[in-house]
Amino acid sequence: MSKSQYIAGLRAVEQLLAAESVEIRQIFVEYQTANPRVQAVITAARNAGIEIQSANRARLAQISGESRHQGVVAEVRRSTVMDEAGLRTMVEERLQSTDGPALLLLILDGVQDPHNLGACMRTADAAGVDAVVVPRHGAAGLGPTVSKVAAGAAEAITFVTVANSGRVLSWLKDYGVRCVGTSDKADRGLFDADFTGPVALIMGREHTGLSKSIASRCDMLVSLPMQGVVASLNVSVATGICLYEIVRQRR
Amino acid sequence: MSKSQYIAGLRAVEQLLAAESVEIRQIFVEYQTANPRVQAVITAARNAGIEIQSANRARLAQISGESRHQGVVAEVRRSTVMDEAGLRTMVEERLQSTDGPALLLLILDGVQDPHNLGACMRTADAAGVDAVVVPRHGAAGLGPTVSKVAAGAAEAITFVTVANSGRVLSWLKDYGVRCVGTSDKADRGLFDADFTGPVALIMGREHTGLSKSIASRCDMLVSLPMQGVVASLNVSVATGICLYEIVRQRR
Repeated sequence: MSKSQYIAGLRAVEQLLAAESVEIRQIFVEYQTANPRVQAVITAARNAGIEIQSANRARLAQISGESRHQGVVAEVRRSTVMDEAGLRTMVEERLQSTDGPALLLLILDGVQDPHNLGACMRTADAAGVDAVVVPRHGAAGLGPTVSKVAAGAAEAITFVTVANSGRVLSWLKDYGVRCVGTSDKADRGLFDADFTGPVALIMGREHTGLSKSIASRCDMLVSLPMQGVVASLNVSVATGICLYEIVRQRR
Repeated sequence: MSKSQYIAGLRAVEQLLAAESVEIRQIFVEYQTANPRVQAVITAARNAGIEIQSANRARLAQISGESRHQGVVAEVRRSTVMDEAGLRTMVEERLQSTDGPALLLLILDGVQDPHNLGACMRTADAAGVDAVVVPRHGAAGLGPTVSKVAAGAAEAITFVTVANSGRVLSWLKDYGVRCVGTSDKADRGLFDADFTGPVALIMGREHTGLSKSIASRCDMLVSLPMQGVVASLNVSVATGICLYEIVRQRR
Protein backbone atom coordinates (compact mmCIF):
# COMPACT_ATOMS: atom_id res chain seq x y z
CA MET A 1 0.00 0.00 0.00
CA SER A 2 1.87 3.06 -1.30
CA LYS A 3 1.32 6.32 0.53
CA SER A 4 1.71 8.38 -2.63
CA GLN A 5 0.42 8.04 -6.13
CA TYR A 6 1.29 10.01 -9.25
CA ILE A 7 -1.46 11.20 -11.57
CA ALA A 8 -0.58 12.39 -15.08
CA GLY A 9 -2.48 14.38 -17.67
CA LEU A 10 -4.19 17.76 -17.78
CA ARG A 11 -7.77 16.64 -17.33
CA ALA A 12 -6.96 14.27 -14.46
CA VAL A 13 -4.97 16.95 -12.60
CA GLU A 14 -7.64 19.60 -13.24
CA GLN A 15 -10.23 17.27 -11.72
CA LEU A 16 -7.97 16.60 -8.75
CA LEU A 17 -7.61 20.33 -8.13
CA ALA A 18 -11.39 20.67 -8.21
CA ALA A 19 -11.85 17.73 -5.81
CA GLU A 20 -11.58 19.16 -2.33
CA SER A 21 -11.44 15.75 -0.65
CA VAL A 22 -8.17 14.77 -2.34
CA GLU A 23 -4.89 15.84 -0.78
CA ILE A 24 -2.40 16.92 -3.48
CA ARG A 25 1.14 16.91 -2.11
CA GLN A 26 2.81 18.65 -5.06
CA ILE A 27 2.46 19.17 -8.79
CA PHE A 28 5.23 18.67 -11.31
CA VAL A 29 5.01 20.71 -14.52
CA GLU A 30 7.10 20.88 -17.65
CA TYR A 31 9.67 23.71 -17.83
CA GLN A 32 8.61 26.77 -19.79
CA THR A 33 5.41 25.38 -21.21
CA ALA A 34 3.23 27.75 -23.21
CA ASN A 35 0.05 25.68 -22.78
CA PRO A 36 -2.57 27.96 -21.16
CA ARG A 37 -4.24 24.96 -19.45
CA VAL A 38 -0.94 24.13 -17.74
CA GLN A 39 -0.64 27.78 -16.72
CA ALA A 40 -4.17 27.59 -15.29
CA VAL A 41 -3.22 24.46 -13.33
CA ILE A 42 -0.18 26.32 -11.91
CA THR A 43 -2.34 29.29 -10.90
CA ALA A 44 -5.01 27.08 -9.29
CA ALA A 45 -2.34 25.08 -7.44
CA ARG A 46 -0.62 28.25 -6.16
CA ASN A 47 -3.97 29.59 -4.95
CA ALA A 48 -4.54 26.32 -3.10
CA GLY A 49 -1.10 26.49 -1.51
CA ILE A 50 0.21 23.44 -3.38
CA GLU A 51 3.92 23.27 -4.13
CA ILE A 52 4.92 23.40 -7.82
CA GLN A 53 8.05 21.70 -9.14
CA SER A 54 9.52 22.06 -12.62
CA ALA A 55 10.73 19.00 -14.52
CA ASN A 56 11.49 18.02 -18.09
CA ARG A 57 9.29 15.66 -20.12
CA ALA A 58 11.45 12.60 -19.47
CA ARG A 59 11.39 13.20 -15.71
CA LEU A 60 7.59 13.62 -15.76
CA ALA A 61 7.29 10.31 -17.59
CA GLN A 62 9.60 8.66 -15.09
CA ILE A 63 7.68 9.99 -12.07
CA SER A 64 4.28 9.02 -13.39
CA GLY A 65 5.05 5.92 -15.44
CA GLU A 66 2.95 7.53 -18.20
CA SER A 67 4.47 8.92 -21.40
CA ARG A 68 1.36 10.93 -22.33
CA HIS A 69 1.47 13.20 -19.27
CA GLN A 70 0.80 16.44 -21.22
CA GLY A 71 3.37 18.23 -19.10
CA VAL A 72 1.56 17.83 -15.75
CA VAL A 73 1.87 15.25 -12.97
CA ALA A 74 0.34 15.48 -9.49
CA GLU A 75 1.49 13.59 -6.41
CA VAL A 76 -1.50 12.72 -4.26
CA ARG A 77 -1.86 11.13 -0.88
CA ARG A 78 -3.74 7.88 -1.01
CA SER A 79 -5.55 7.21 2.22
CA THR A 80 -8.43 5.23 0.86
CA VAL A 81 -6.97 1.78 0.08
CA MET A 82 -8.39 -0.79 2.48
CA ASP A 83 -8.22 -4.50 3.13
CA GLU A 84 -11.12 -6.84 4.03
CA ALA A 85 -10.88 -6.07 7.76
CA GLY A 86 -11.09 -2.34 7.06
CA LEU A 87 -14.09 -2.89 4.80
CA ARG A 88 -15.82 -4.90 7.52
CA THR A 89 -15.32 -2.12 10.05
CA MET A 90 -16.56 0.47 7.57
CA VAL A 91 -19.65 -1.61 6.71
CA GLU A 92 -20.45 -2.16 10.41
CA GLU A 93 -20.23 1.58 11.08
CA ARG A 94 -22.33 2.48 8.05
CA LEU A 95 -25.04 -0.05 8.95
CA GLN A 96 -25.23 1.25 12.54
CA SER A 97 -25.63 4.83 11.41
CA THR A 98 -29.10 6.02 10.46
CA ASP A 99 -27.80 9.15 8.73
CA GLY A 100 -27.40 9.46 5.00
CA PRO A 101 -28.22 7.10 2.17
CA ALA A 102 -28.16 3.30 2.49
CA LEU A 103 -24.83 1.48 2.06
CA LEU A 104 -23.79 0.92 -1.55
CA LEU A 105 -20.81 -1.26 -2.48
CA LEU A 106 -19.56 -2.07 -5.98
CA ILE A 107 -17.82 -5.45 -6.19
CA LEU A 108 -15.97 -5.98 -9.48
CA ASP A 109 -15.37 -9.71 -9.63
CA GLY A 110 -12.30 -9.86 -11.86
CA VAL A 111 -12.43 -6.90 -14.26
CA GLN A 112 -9.26 -7.22 -16.37
CA ASP A 113 -8.93 -4.00 -18.35
CA PRO A 114 -7.61 -0.96 -16.43
CA HIS A 115 -9.68 1.32 -18.70
CA ASN A 116 -12.81 -0.50 -17.54
CA LEU A 117 -11.73 -0.37 -13.88
CA GLY A 118 -11.04 3.38 -14.20
CA ALA A 119 -14.39 4.04 -15.91
CA CYS A 120 -16.19 1.99 -13.21
CA MET A 121 -14.47 4.00 -10.45
CA ARG A 122 -15.38 7.30 -12.13
CA THR A 123 -19.05 6.28 -12.28
CA ALA A 124 -18.96 4.78 -8.78
CA ASP A 125 -17.73 8.10 -7.40
CA ALA A 126 -20.51 9.98 -9.21
CA ALA A 127 -23.16 7.52 -8.00
CA GLY A 128 -22.14 7.82 -4.34
CA VAL A 129 -20.70 4.31 -3.94
CA ASP A 130 -19.12 3.78 -0.49
CA ALA A 131 -16.34 1.48 -1.70
CA VAL A 132 -15.16 -0.39 -4.79
CA VAL A 133 -14.07 -3.95 -3.97
CA VAL A 134 -11.81 -6.01 -6.25
CA PRO A 135 -9.95 -9.32 -5.92
CA ARG A 136 -6.29 -8.88 -4.98
CA HIS A 137 -5.16 -11.34 -7.68
CA GLY A 138 -6.24 -12.00 -11.26
CA ALA A 139 -7.81 -8.59 -11.84
CA ALA A 140 -6.82 -5.04 -12.78
CA GLY A 141 -5.47 -3.01 -9.86
CA LEU A 142 -4.75 0.68 -9.37
CA GLY A 143 -2.18 2.32 -11.63
CA PRO A 144 -1.60 5.30 -13.92
CA THR A 145 -4.12 4.16 -16.58
CA VAL A 146 -6.83 3.61 -13.98
CA SER A 147 -6.13 7.01 -12.39
CA LYS A 148 -6.21 8.82 -15.70
CA VAL A 149 -9.46 7.20 -16.88
CA ALA A 150 -11.05 7.64 -13.44
CA ALA A 151 -10.50 11.43 -13.74
CA GLY A 152 -9.87 11.97 -10.03
CA ALA A 153 -12.14 9.23 -8.66
CA ALA A 154 -9.34 6.69 -8.12
CA GLU A 155 -7.87 8.94 -5.42
CA ALA A 156 -11.20 9.89 -3.89
CA ILE A 157 -13.16 6.66 -3.60
CA THR A 158 -12.44 3.94 -1.05
CA PHE A 159 -10.76 1.04 -2.82
CA VAL A 160 -10.68 -2.40 -1.22
CA THR A 161 -8.64 -5.39 -2.33
CA VAL A 162 -9.69 -8.79 -0.95
CA ALA A 163 -8.28 -12.29 -1.20
CA ASN A 164 -11.68 -13.95 -1.67
CA SER A 165 -14.75 -12.11 -2.97
CA GLY A 166 -17.00 -15.06 -2.10
CA ARG A 167 -16.10 -14.79 1.59
CA VAL A 168 -16.94 -11.07 1.51
CA LEU A 169 -20.38 -11.85 0.06
CA SER A 170 -20.97 -14.36 2.87
CA TRP A 171 -20.47 -11.88 5.69
CA LEU A 172 -22.21 -9.06 3.81
CA LYS A 173 -25.30 -11.27 3.61
CA ASP A 174 -25.01 -12.02 7.34
CA TYR A 175 -25.12 -8.26 7.95
CA GLY A 176 -28.30 -7.97 5.86
CA VAL A 177 -26.67 -6.35 2.83
CA ARG A 178 -28.51 -7.44 -0.32
CA CYS A 179 -25.99 -8.91 -2.77
CA VAL A 180 -27.22 -8.35 -6.34
CA GLY A 181 -25.24 -9.85 -9.21
CA THR A 182 -25.70 -9.16 -12.90
CA SER A 183 -26.02 -12.03 -15.36
CA ASP A 184 -27.43 -12.29 -18.87
CA LYS A 185 -29.03 -15.56 -17.74
CA ALA A 186 -30.99 -13.96 -14.88
CA ASP A 187 -34.79 -14.25 -14.91
CA ARG A 188 -35.35 -10.92 -13.20
CA GLY A 189 -34.77 -7.58 -14.94
CA LEU A 190 -32.74 -4.78 -13.36
CA PHE A 191 -35.81 -2.55 -13.16
CA ASP A 192 -37.77 -5.15 -11.17
CA ALA A 193 -35.28 -5.30 -8.30
CA ASP A 194 -35.53 -3.22 -5.10
CA PHE A 195 -32.33 -1.32 -4.29
CA THR A 196 -33.57 0.98 -1.56
CA GLY A 197 -31.85 -0.87 1.33
CA PRO A 198 -28.14 -1.63 1.84
CA VAL A 199 -26.85 -3.15 -1.41
CA ALA A 200 -23.71 -4.69 -2.87
CA LEU A 201 -23.77 -4.68 -6.69
CA ILE A 202 -21.57 -7.42 -8.14
CA MET A 203 -20.33 -7.16 -11.75
CA GLY A 204 -18.47 -9.98 -13.52
CA ARG A 205 -15.37 -10.13 -15.64
CA GLU A 206 -15.33 -8.94 -19.25
CA HIS A 207 -16.62 -11.61 -21.71
CA THR A 208 -17.15 -14.37 -19.12
CA GLY A 209 -19.32 -12.54 -16.57
CA LEU A 210 -19.84 -13.63 -12.97
CA SER A 211 -18.17 -16.86 -11.89
CA LYS A 212 -20.58 -19.66 -10.88
CA SER A 213 -19.24 -19.60 -7.35
CA ILE A 214 -19.98 -15.87 -6.96
CA ALA A 215 -23.34 -16.06 -8.77
CA SER A 216 -24.48 -18.84 -6.42
CA ARG A 217 -23.75 -16.65 -3.39
CA CYS A 218 -25.77 -13.66 -4.61
CA ASP A 219 -29.20 -12.98 -3.09
CA MET A 220 -30.49 -12.11 -6.52
CA LEU A 221 -29.32 -12.03 -10.14
CA VAL A 222 -30.59 -9.37 -12.52
CA SER A 223 -30.18 -8.84 -16.26
CA LEU A 224 -30.39 -5.81 -18.51
CA PRO A 225 -33.01 -5.93 -21.26
CA MET A 226 -31.23 -6.48 -24.62
CA GLN A 227 -33.22 -5.61 -27.73
CA GLY A 228 -30.66 -5.90 -30.54
CA VAL A 229 -28.00 -8.24 -31.86
CA VAL A 230 -25.30 -7.78 -29.24
CA ALA A 231 -25.27 -10.27 -26.41
CA SER A 232 -23.88 -8.06 -23.67
CA LEU A 233 -22.74 -4.54 -22.84
CA ASN A 234 -19.30 -3.25 -21.96
CA VAL A 235 -18.80 -3.82 -18.21
CA SER A 236 -18.27 -0.13 -17.43
CA VAL A 237 -21.45 0.83 -19.31
CA ALA A 238 -23.45 -1.95 -17.60
CA THR A 239 -22.06 -0.84 -14.22
CA GLY A 240 -23.16 2.74 -14.93
CA ILE A 241 -26.68 1.66 -15.88
CA CYS A 242 -27.05 -0.48 -12.73
CA LEU A 243 -25.58 2.15 -10.37
CA TYR A 244 -27.83 4.89 -11.73
CA GLU A 245 -30.92 2.69 -11.41
CA ILE A 246 -29.93 2.42 -7.73
CA VAL A 247 -29.46 6.22 -7.57
CA ARG A 248 -32.89 6.68 -9.18
CA GLN A 249 -34.64 4.39 -6.72
CA ARG A 250 -33.04 6.12 -3.74
CA ARG A 251 -33.88 9.70 -4.68
CA MET B 1 -20.31 4.45 -48.76
CA SER B 2 -18.53 1.11 -48.97
CA LYS B 3 -20.68 -1.95 -49.60
CA SER B 4 -18.42 -4.20 -47.59
CA GLN B 5 -16.76 -3.88 -44.24
CA TYR B 6 -14.17 -6.10 -42.59
CA ILE B 7 -14.54 -7.05 -38.94
CA ALA B 8 -11.57 -8.52 -37.07
CA GLY B 9 -11.27 -10.40 -33.80
CA LEU B 10 -12.76 -13.52 -32.29
CA ARG B 11 -15.40 -11.93 -30.11
CA ALA B 12 -16.60 -9.53 -32.80
CA VAL B 13 -16.93 -12.36 -35.37
CA GLU B 14 -18.61 -14.66 -32.85
CA GLN B 15 -21.19 -11.94 -32.18
CA LEU B 16 -21.70 -11.41 -35.91
CA LEU B 17 -22.38 -15.12 -36.36
CA ALA B 18 -24.95 -14.98 -33.56
CA ALA B 19 -26.63 -11.88 -35.06
CA GLU B 20 -29.11 -13.14 -37.62
CA SER B 21 -29.78 -9.70 -39.06
CA VAL B 22 -26.20 -9.23 -40.30
CA GLU B 23 -25.21 -10.64 -43.67
CA ILE B 24 -21.71 -12.15 -43.54
CA ARG B 25 -20.28 -12.54 -47.04
CA GLN B 26 -17.25 -14.62 -46.11
CA ILE B 27 -14.89 -15.30 -43.23
CA PHE B 28 -11.10 -15.29 -43.51
CA VAL B 29 -9.21 -17.47 -41.02
CA GLU B 30 -5.54 -18.05 -40.31
CA TYR B 31 -4.01 -21.20 -41.87
CA GLN B 32 -3.71 -24.20 -39.60
CA THR B 33 -4.71 -22.50 -36.39
CA ALA B 34 -5.07 -24.67 -33.29
CA ASN B 35 -7.27 -22.19 -31.42
CA PRO B 36 -10.52 -24.02 -30.54
CA ARG B 37 -12.51 -20.76 -30.69
CA VAL B 38 -11.39 -20.25 -34.30
CA GLN B 39 -12.37 -23.85 -35.00
CA ALA B 40 -15.80 -23.14 -33.48
CA VAL B 41 -16.17 -20.07 -35.71
CA ILE B 42 -15.35 -22.21 -38.76
CA THR B 43 -17.92 -24.82 -37.75
CA ALA B 44 -20.62 -22.23 -37.10
CA ALA B 45 -19.89 -20.47 -40.39
CA ARG B 46 -20.03 -23.77 -42.33
CA ASN B 47 -23.35 -24.60 -40.69
CA ALA B 48 -24.67 -21.19 -41.75
CA GLY B 49 -23.47 -21.71 -45.33
CA ILE B 50 -20.85 -18.96 -45.12
CA GLU B 51 -17.74 -19.31 -47.28
CA ILE B 52 -14.42 -19.76 -45.43
CA GLN B 53 -11.12 -18.55 -46.87
CA SER B 54 -7.66 -19.26 -45.48
CA ALA B 55 -5.08 -16.49 -45.20
CA ASN B 56 -1.86 -15.81 -43.34
CA ARG B 57 -1.60 -13.31 -40.48
CA ALA B 58 -0.21 -10.51 -42.66
CA ARG B 59 -3.03 -10.89 -45.17
CA LEU B 60 -5.64 -10.84 -42.40
CA ALA B 61 -4.10 -7.61 -41.09
CA GLN B 62 -4.13 -6.14 -44.59
CA ILE B 63 -7.78 -7.06 -45.22
CA SER B 64 -9.04 -5.73 -41.92
CA GLY B 65 -6.64 -2.87 -41.22
CA GLU B 66 -6.30 -4.33 -37.72
CA SER B 67 -3.13 -6.08 -36.51
CA ARG B 68 -4.83 -7.70 -33.51
CA HIS B 69 -7.25 -9.79 -35.57
CA GLN B 70 -6.73 -13.04 -33.57
CA GLY B 71 -6.71 -15.03 -36.81
CA VAL B 72 -10.31 -14.23 -37.83
CA VAL B 73 -11.78 -11.56 -40.13
CA ALA B 74 -15.36 -11.40 -41.43
CA GLU B 75 -16.54 -9.51 -44.52
CA VAL B 76 -20.01 -8.16 -43.90
CA ARG B 77 -22.45 -6.35 -46.07
CA ARG B 78 -23.27 -2.90 -44.79
CA SER B 79 -26.73 -1.85 -45.77
CA THR B 80 -27.46 0.45 -42.90
CA VAL B 81 -25.45 3.63 -43.62
CA MET B 82 -27.80 6.51 -44.41
CA ASP B 83 -27.66 10.20 -45.19
CA GLU B 84 -29.97 12.94 -43.87
CA ALA B 85 -32.60 12.37 -46.57
CA GLY B 86 -32.73 8.66 -45.72
CA LEU B 87 -33.07 9.48 -42.03
CA ARG B 88 -35.94 11.84 -42.78
CA THR B 89 -37.80 9.17 -44.76
CA MET B 90 -37.20 6.64 -42.00
CA VAL B 91 -38.43 9.05 -39.31
CA GLU B 92 -41.55 9.91 -41.32
CA GLU B 93 -42.39 6.22 -41.73
CA ARG B 94 -41.76 5.44 -38.08
CA LEU B 95 -43.92 8.34 -36.90
CA GLN B 96 -46.81 7.29 -39.17
CA SER B 97 -46.74 3.73 -37.89
CA THR B 98 -48.59 2.97 -34.69
CA ASP B 99 -46.86 -0.39 -34.24
CA GLY B 100 -43.95 -0.97 -31.94
CA PRO B 101 -42.18 1.34 -29.51
CA ALA B 102 -41.85 5.09 -30.00
CA LEU B 103 -39.03 6.42 -32.17
CA LEU B 104 -35.65 6.64 -30.45
CA LEU B 105 -32.66 8.35 -32.07
CA LEU B 106 -29.19 8.77 -30.59
CA ILE B 107 -27.39 11.89 -31.88
CA LEU B 108 -23.70 11.97 -30.96
CA ASP B 109 -22.68 15.59 -31.50
CA GLY B 110 -18.98 15.19 -32.15
CA VAL B 111 -17.73 12.14 -30.22
CA GLN B 112 -14.00 11.93 -31.05
CA ASP B 113 -12.79 8.59 -29.73
CA PRO B 114 -13.66 5.51 -31.84
CA HIS B 115 -13.76 3.41 -28.65
CA ASN B 116 -16.49 5.69 -27.31
CA LEU B 117 -18.40 5.60 -30.62
CA GLY B 118 -18.19 1.79 -30.67
CA ALA B 119 -19.35 1.49 -27.06
CA CYS B 120 -22.24 3.90 -27.75
CA MET B 121 -23.30 1.84 -30.78
CA ARG B 122 -23.16 -1.39 -28.78
CA THR B 123 -25.42 0.09 -26.10
CA ALA B 124 -27.69 1.77 -28.68
CA ASP B 125 -28.28 -1.61 -30.33
CA ALA B 126 -29.13 -3.20 -26.98
CA ALA B 127 -31.49 -0.35 -26.05
CA GLY B 128 -33.45 -0.57 -29.31
CA VAL B 129 -32.28 2.72 -30.82
CA ASP B 130 -33.60 3.24 -34.38
CA ALA B 131 -30.53 5.08 -35.67
CA VAL B 132 -27.25 6.60 -34.48
CA VAL B 133 -26.63 10.02 -36.03
CA VAL B 134 -23.17 11.64 -36.19
CA PRO B 135 -21.68 14.69 -37.94
CA ARG B 136 -19.92 13.81 -41.18
CA HIS B 137 -16.89 15.93 -40.26
CA GLY B 138 -14.97 16.53 -37.05
CA ALA B 139 -16.10 13.34 -35.31
CA ALA B 140 -15.21 9.65 -35.16
CA GLY B 141 -16.64 7.63 -38.05
CA LEU B 142 -16.99 3.91 -38.70
CA GLY B 143 -13.84 1.82 -38.89
CA PRO B 144 -12.18 -1.33 -37.54
CA THR B 145 -11.85 -0.03 -33.95
CA VAL B 146 -15.50 1.02 -33.83
CA SER B 147 -16.61 -2.34 -35.24
CA LYS B 148 -14.52 -4.31 -32.77
CA VAL B 149 -15.69 -2.34 -29.73
CA ALA B 150 -19.30 -2.38 -30.94
CA ALA B 151 -19.23 -6.21 -30.91
CA GLY B 152 -21.52 -6.61 -33.93
CA ALA B 153 -23.69 -3.54 -33.41
CA ALA B 154 -21.82 -1.36 -35.93
CA GLU B 155 -23.05 -3.64 -38.72
CA ALA B 156 -26.56 -4.04 -37.35
CA ILE B 157 -27.68 -0.58 -36.32
CA THR B 158 -28.65 2.15 -38.78
CA PHE B 159 -25.84 4.71 -38.92
CA VAL B 160 -26.49 8.18 -40.29
CA THR B 161 -23.91 10.82 -41.15
CA VAL B 162 -25.14 14.39 -41.55
CA ALA B 163 -23.55 17.68 -42.58
CA ASN B 164 -25.32 19.73 -39.92
CA SER B 165 -26.72 18.26 -36.69
CA GLY B 166 -28.50 21.51 -35.86
CA ARG B 167 -30.57 21.34 -39.03
CA VAL B 168 -31.57 17.77 -38.17
CA LEU B 169 -32.78 18.91 -34.75
CA SER B 170 -34.86 21.63 -36.41
CA TRP B 171 -36.87 19.26 -38.59
CA LEU B 172 -37.08 16.60 -35.89
CA LYS B 173 -38.77 19.19 -33.63
CA ASP B 174 -41.15 20.11 -36.48
CA TYR B 175 -42.15 16.42 -36.59
CA GLY B 176 -42.86 16.46 -32.86
CA VAL B 177 -39.79 14.46 -31.85
CA ARG B 178 -38.66 15.62 -28.40
CA CYS B 179 -34.97 16.59 -28.59
CA VAL B 180 -33.33 16.00 -25.20
CA GLY B 181 -29.71 17.05 -24.72
CA THR B 182 -27.47 16.23 -21.77
CA SER B 183 -25.54 18.97 -20.01
CA ASP B 184 -23.96 19.21 -16.58
CA LYS B 185 -25.43 22.74 -16.39
CA ALA B 186 -29.03 21.57 -16.89
CA ASP B 187 -31.56 22.34 -14.16
CA ARG B 188 -33.62 19.22 -14.75
CA GLY B 189 -32.43 15.76 -13.75
CA LEU B 190 -32.54 12.81 -16.15
CA PHE B 191 -35.08 11.02 -13.96
CA ASP B 192 -37.51 13.96 -14.09
CA ALA B 193 -37.84 13.92 -17.88
CA ASP B 194 -40.57 12.09 -19.80
CA PHE B 195 -39.23 9.82 -22.54
CA THR B 196 -42.35 7.89 -23.43
CA GLY B 197 -43.00 9.64 -26.78
CA PRO B 198 -40.72 9.94 -29.85
CA VAL B 199 -37.31 11.07 -28.59
CA ALA B 200 -33.90 12.10 -29.92
CA LEU B 201 -31.21 11.89 -27.23
CA ILE B 202 -28.29 14.22 -27.96
CA MET B 203 -24.89 13.60 -26.32
CA GLY B 204 -21.97 16.04 -26.60
CA ARG B 205 -18.31 15.65 -27.36
CA GLU B 206 -15.86 14.27 -24.80
CA HIS B 207 -14.62 16.95 -22.32
CA THR B 208 -16.47 19.89 -23.89
CA GLY B 209 -20.04 18.51 -24.00
CA LEU B 210 -22.83 19.86 -26.20
CA SER B 211 -22.02 22.90 -28.33
CA LYS B 212 -24.02 26.04 -27.45
CA SER B 213 -25.65 26.01 -30.87
CA ILE B 214 -26.93 22.45 -30.38
CA ALA B 215 -27.90 22.97 -26.74
CA SER B 216 -29.99 26.00 -27.70
CA ARG B 217 -31.96 23.92 -30.21
CA CYS B 218 -32.86 21.15 -27.74
CA ASP B 219 -36.39 21.03 -26.31
CA MET B 220 -34.92 20.15 -22.95
CA LEU B 221 -31.55 19.70 -21.27
CA VAL B 222 -31.06 17.11 -18.54
CA SER B 223 -28.17 16.31 -16.22
CA LEU B 224 -27.10 13.21 -14.33
CA PRO B 225 -26.91 13.52 -10.55
CA MET B 226 -23.22 13.64 -9.51
CA GLN B 227 -22.46 12.86 -5.86
CA GLY B 228 -18.66 12.66 -5.78
CA VAL B 229 -15.57 14.54 -6.90
CA VAL B 230 -15.66 13.87 -10.63
CA ALA B 231 -17.36 16.52 -12.76
CA SER B 232 -18.65 14.29 -15.55
CA LEU B 233 -18.94 10.69 -16.73
CA ASN B 234 -17.40 9.01 -19.74
CA VAL B 235 -19.66 9.72 -22.73
CA SER B 236 -20.35 6.04 -23.45
CA VAL B 237 -21.30 5.42 -19.80
CA ALA B 238 -23.53 8.52 -19.71
CA THR B 239 -25.15 7.43 -22.99
CA GLY B 240 -25.87 4.00 -21.51
CA ILE B 241 -27.45 5.48 -18.39
CA CYS B 242 -29.68 7.82 -20.43
CA LEU B 243 -30.72 5.17 -22.97
CA TYR B 244 -31.64 2.67 -20.27
CA GLU B 245 -33.69 5.27 -18.39
CA ILE B 246 -35.62 5.63 -21.68
CA VAL B 247 -35.92 1.82 -21.90
CA ARG B 248 -37.18 1.71 -18.30
CA GLN B 249 -39.84 4.36 -18.87
CA ARG B 250 -41.11 2.60 -22.00
CA ARG B 251 -41.48 -0.89 -20.53
